[in-house]
Amino acid sequence: MGSLHATPFETIAIWVVLLIALLGLGYAMLLRSQIMRKEKGTAKMQEVWNAIRQGADTYLGRQLKTIAPLVAVLTVVLFFSVYIVPPSPQALERFAGMTPDQVRVIIGIGRAIAFIMGAIFSLMVGQFGMRMAVQGSVRVAAAARKSFGEALKIAYRAGTITGMLTDGLGLLGGTIIFIIFGIAAPDALLGFGFGATLLALFMRVGGGIFTKAADVGADLVGKVEKNIPEDDPRNAAVIADLVGDNVGDCAGMAADIFESYEVTIVAGLILGLALVAITGEVKWIIFPLLVRGIGVLASIIGTYLVRGGRNDASTNAMSAINRGFYTSAGISLVAFAALAAFYMNEWRAFLSVAVGIILAIVIDELTKLSTDTHHGAVKGIAAASKTGAATLILRGLAVGFESSVWQILVIALTILSAVVIYWGQDVIFVLYGVAMTGIGMLTLTGNNVAMDSFGPICDNANGIGEMAKLEPKSRQIMADLDAVGNTTKAITKGVAIGSAVIAAVSLFGSFLADISLVQQANMGIPAAQTLLATGIRISQPIVFIGALVGSSIPWLFSSLMINAVARAAGLIVEEVRRQFRIPGLMEGTVAPDYRRAVGISTAAAQRELIPLAIIAVLLPLVIGILLGVEALGGLLAGVILSGQLLAVFMSTSGGAWDNAKKMIEDGLYGGKGSEAHKSSVVGDTVGDPLKDTAGPALNPLIKVINLVSLLAAPVLVQYQYNVTAGVIITAVLGLVIVIGAVIFSKRGGFGRKEKTSAEF
Amino acid sequence: MGSLHATPFETIAIWVVLLIALLGLGYAMLLRSQIMRKEKGTAKMQEVWNAIRQGADTYLGRQLKTIAPLVAVLTVVLFFSVYIVPPSPQALERFAGMTPDQVRVIIGIGRAIAFIMGAIFSLMVGQFGMRMAVQGSVRVAAAARKSFGEALKIAYRAGTITGMLTDGLGLLGGTIIFIIFGIAAPDALLGFGFGATLLALFMRVGGGIFTKAADVGADLVGKVEKNIPEDDPRNAAVIADLVGDNVGDCAGMAADIFESYEVTIVAGLILGLALVAITGEVKWIIFPLLVRGIGVLASIIGTYLVRGGRNDASTNAMSAINRGFYTSAGISLVAFAALAAFYMNEWRAFLSVAVGIILAIVIDELTKLSTDTHHGAVKGIAAASKTGAATLILRGLAVGFESSVWQILVIALTILSAVVIYWGQDVIFVLYGVAMTGIGMLTLTGNNVAMDSFGPICDNANGIGEMAKLEPKSRQIMADLDAVGNTTKAITKGVAIGSAVIAAVSLFGSFLADISLVQQANMGIPAAQTLLATGIRISQPIVFIGALVGSSIPWLFSSLMINAVARAAGLIVEEVRRQFRIPGLMEGTVAPDYRRAVGISTAAAQRELIPLAIIAVLLPLVIGILLGVEALGGLLAGVILSGQLLAVFMSTSGGAWDNAKKMIEDGLYGGKGSEAHKSSVVGDTVGDPLKDTAGPALNPLIKVINLVSLLAAPVLVQYQYNVTAGVIITAVLGLVIVIGAVIFSKRGGFGRKEKTSAEF
Repeated sequence: MGSLHATPFETIAIWVVLLIALLGLGYAMLLRSQIMRKEKGTAKMQEVWNAIRQGADTYLGRQLKTIAPLVAVLTVVLFFSVYIVPPSPQALERFAGMTPDQVRVIIGIGRAIAFIMGAIFSLMVGQFGMRMAVQGSVRVAAAARKSFGEALKIAYRAGTITGMLTDGLGLLGGTIIFIIFGIAAPDALLGFGFGATLLALFMRVGGGIFTKAADVGADLVGKVEKNIPEDDPRNAAVIADLVGDNVGDCAGMAADIFESYEVTIVAGLILGLALVAITGEVKWIIFPLLVRGIGVLASIIGTYLVRGGRNDASTNAMSAINRGFYTSAGISLVAFAALAAFYMNEWRAFLSVAVGIILAIVIDELTKLSTDTHHGAVKGIAAASKTGAATLILRGLAVGFESSVWQILVIALTILSAVVIYWGQDVIFVLYGVAMTGIGMLTLTGNNVAMDSFGPICDNANGIGEMAKLEPKSRQIMADLDAVGNTTKAITKGVAIGSAVIAAVSLFGSFLADISLVQQANMGIPAAQTLLATGIRISQPIVFIGALVGSSIPWLFSSLMINAVARAAGLIVEEVRRQFRIPGLMEGTVAPDYRRAVGISTAAAQRELIPLAIIAVLLPLVIGILLGVEALGGLLAGVILSGQLLAVFMSTSGGAWDNAKKMIEDGLYGGKGSEAHKSSVVGDTVGDPLKDTAGPALNPLIKVINLVSLLAAPVLVQYQYNVTAGVIITAVLGLVIVIGAVIFSKRGGFGRKEKTSAEF
Repeated sequence: MGSLHATPFETIAIWVVLLIALLGLGYAMLLRSQIMRKEKGTAKMQEVWNAIRQGADTYLGRQLKTIAPLVAVLTVVLFFSVYIVPPSPQALERFAGMTPDQVRVIIGIGRAIAFIMGAIFSLMVGQFGMRMAVQGSVRVAAAARKSFGEALKIAYRAGTITGMLTDGLGLLGGTIIFIIFGIAAPDALLGFGFGATLLALFMRVGGGIFTKAADVGADLVGKVEKNIPEDDPRNAAVIADLVGDNVGDCAGMAADIFESYEVTIVAGLILGLALVAITGEVKWIIFPLLVRGIGVLASIIGTYLVRGGRNDASTNAMSAINRGFYTSAGISLVAFAALAAFYMNEWRAFLSVAVGIILAIVIDELTKLSTDTHHGAVKGIAAASKTGAATLILRGLAVGFESSVWQILVIALTILSAVVIYWGQDVIFVLYGVAMTGIGMLTLTGNNVAMDSFGPICDNANGIGEMAKLEPKSRQIMADLDAVGNTTKAITKGVAIGSAVIAAVSLFGSFLADISLVQQANMGIPAAQTLLATGIRISQPIVFIGALVGSSIPWLFSSLMINAVARAAGLIVEEVRRQFRIPGLMEGTVAPDYRRAVGISTAAAQRELIPLAIIAVLLPLVIGILLGVEALGGLLAGVILSGQLLAVFMSTSGGAWDNAKKMIEDGLYGGKGSEAHKSSVVGDTVGDPLKDTAGPALNPLIKVINLVSLLAAPVLVQYQYNVTAGVIITAVLGLVIVIGAVIFSKRGGFGRKEKTSAEF
């Protein structure tokens, strides 16, 4: 921990944290070997499972090929970025014996390697977690033929593997970088966080498009046109649909939470280092790492406790999972309190972390209120089905709008609590408090990811059961588990969005702190005139313009992703229709070609990846270069504000429509096949791309933009650009874009959409 | 023009502006007498017309009763508000011979009277305009039996009456206040603007709920259940539906644009006075008034030129209307240039105004691109109908999302142009530039409102034609006019939102200028430390909280309004169903009781008025008192950002679905009665409350919140509150609200919605 004046206790503590990270990974390996020993069921089941496995691998392989060039280019850019600005004083201090040029090289290499490490870790969490989900699901299906308890245990533990990978790799990466770079850690940590975030964006965008293209495509022909059940083996898109559950819900969500986990620690350490500089106390950066270590330990214990009895009902499954969660939460809180009392000698950091844990629970509750079937919101939506699809959709929109209001108020309260806890202190303390809240929120990441992965595992087990035509009793067990999985999945979505917003706010704070550091150290600007002191003045016209542009980005992304799903679903519809025309297929004597549908979804998902990533990476740079860092700060604020509202709206409305449909399928208002049911299917189909594609992609988007800004901040602030030129270039560019777009559209630019829509 | 050092030319010019305002009103009276002389058609037509007239009057009467107490209370509050802060130095200078106490009373009375005047003018524009629309529509129907050209002329001129009322009353009020109060004008002008805005909010919220409750309710039973055509006289809600077109599109829109017209001049004069203080030149406040005067003259000439030949087709109708618009625009631009050359002796203010006129045209084009049937966006939505309602709705959502991105970029460019035009000047000049752009945008308000009112007039004429069973040839003329009316109506919606945002940004600027003035004059704070200089720092946690709260308000409003429409539509459905069960009604031998449906819609519309108005008025005060003026500034920024995005999204998606349905009804994909048509009806029904209720209500909402903040600013900034107490109270209040809401909901709070939804 070079050049940090850590006590022996602190030094040992950090190494213990590293050990805990390895312990978490070891626990994941242990669970894996437990699960791999379980039996895989009948030959038919294994056949289905193999098809899913191959489909998932195909997708990930293709995705990797698509993004590899961009990752390579960015690695080089990150390495050379150190040649634009002189090394930070922290870096020079850390590597005190070397020349500035040597330090440059070290920091450059460190940042580039950290970036690749972040990307690879993220990929591993996604890929390995997804493979385990696939491995788990066939074994859950096999176990369901014997007992409910065994099936539950396997499903949850298979999910826990992903959870512990997220925890373990996240903690490992952060701690190693911290041990090597000490006070220069932010330089490399930013690379690590950026790698994780960028990969998460790819997984979310690609996975989201894949899963919903396959799902919507399969349903439109199978359920609606041919009137055959979901997961019917004659539907050529059915394997793609099952693969989609894995790449979207499992790989996508794991990568998403992994990066939130990473990004909160990055923000925590950057802000912590700023406090170290102010107070001279090292504890501010040791604390977040210790908190993380405790969280991993608590997750190991809590998740291991989750098991069901032999003949448990599904409600008991939910309470078993909750028991594990609350055990972990309890252990963490007690340990944090001990840390506060005996190490920190103050309670404020503890309070911030505790607020984070409470926040996770409050968001859970709010999400349930508007999306689960026991509350009025979803009941109201279901009731509206009686007057048709239009009223049902309107109700769902209203519920989503309202829900985003509540969630944003809760986020506001959380920030307010940081203000109260650090009352009378400098703004940097408050920002640190917000970052600690983010860390607190993600303390139980192991449990959260386990709960989330549990969803697609049970969903796939259920699908395998349907396709392999298992006996009714075990099918019922799998259906029950699937229902529990839907609930746990929905809950984690709320936490993912909430933590993304808190992480983004922390990064926004780090952005200010980082720029002010550079301004003081490299530019000789007095503390009172740094950006942290003068602030991002949204009342400045140029900053307001930044905020306007920023707030529009989530809307642009959502629009593009919804269209991408619609286009890709159209292609799947054509393919499935084509295959149904093959003689013998409908009768079940000829097997459909599942691979083609997987291939189509895969290709469609890749098409949007690079353009969207380039927008996310370049836009903040363009605004920063042309309009300056303060306008870039406005952009960040705009992205956070509108991204949060839109993400919550889309995921809530989607979830609520989904569950309204489930209520009707369970017999309400005439049940399956009734007019009410048809209306609810429309609602669900509208909601699918909102809640599983566009909504989730906004989480990494918000963070990628914040991280790029943070990485570019030292360059942007030091290189005095010509403001006049920047403003004029922006004005001209903007005019050209708008006029170009108008002409393009008038000449049928939107026609591309029309044409592909006509392909449905 | 007390205590302004105006030249004789300037003094005369202002009086000329006053004369022009009266001229505008005189022109409206002239048009009225022209139209009243036209014949009203058959007895049956007059019967229908009478029913519409009575319905509209009933609605307005009830609305007035509901809001009168609140208006009375606010008048008193506004009067006594002058007792909290000492009179401004400008007020003391204006009434130099009086004691401060006397000045207080004068300002208090002035502000209270101005408030009532603003409210009454707004009401007059809405009420009188609506009555003229009703008068006009029966005469258009009668004229359509003879010639297309005559019908077009009557419809457009009846609309022009509302347009000229908006222009004339707006200019009259502003100019009178300016002449009486001189440099103290802002004190009274704020009251005037607030009155206009508050009434507009009532008209928008009430009218929006009324019109869509009646429309959706009538369609759900009539078109969907009973399969009878629109405007069928057997449908008990048909008169309510026709009344709705008037109260929503005509009265609501006129009041909305009236207040934008008012609010931009208020902002322009406040910022202009700040420039007068800096530069010592009076021209900065004379200029906006002269621009307005020229605009009214240009509108009179342009609108009078609109007429069609005897047998013109509908395309010619559109080009006649456009001809009038471009004539007005040309006259204005030439006169503004003369003003710049010979009076202002500089071109910057002219450029800002010209940008406003261009902006209005660009927004028109953008609106058309995503909502009219000639472009790919709507064609794509229509094509998606082939795979059902869900894909059609997804397409529409994507189009709306994308459209909001473009429009916000255009607004950003507009602000950037102000930055470029006033390059190197203080921020106050840039803000003045933005205000002038707003004034430029609304130069042709007369034409805009005329085009907008033209819509419901033709719609009603068509309805009267259907109900009075007129001959096919005249029905065709009315249908053609109706189609043109739909286009002109859609275009003005874009301008209404755009101008609302620009007006809000100007008010936001005035908020800063006003506070800084008070800080300097009453508190002795040096200019460099006023809020204008230090800015609204969104990077301050408390300000960010303000922005979070602010950005959630439009979502809350939208959610509440969509639910209100759904509830009210449910009540209408019940009533119409009940009446259809009356023996003989379906056969046409018994007439339905139209009044009950009007009564139900009226009552439903009133129910939401007061709570929504109280949220809009109190929320900024609460945030300002508890968290301070800077957080309030954050709230204003948040409201503008999220309000603009949401409003454009809702109005665009709604308009696009509407037109996709029209394309299919015109024969695409199987035409009326096909599956594609059913899907498009779902899209249209979803879009209706978005585009005609929730979306339009956001325009006045954004401005009410800004105006309340502006009115409260001097009080808030001077009365040093206890920051600690404020933050703690907010935290506690917030927690109580969130916990309370969770408990309330768990106990079935949302049940209210469920129950009423079940009433469908």
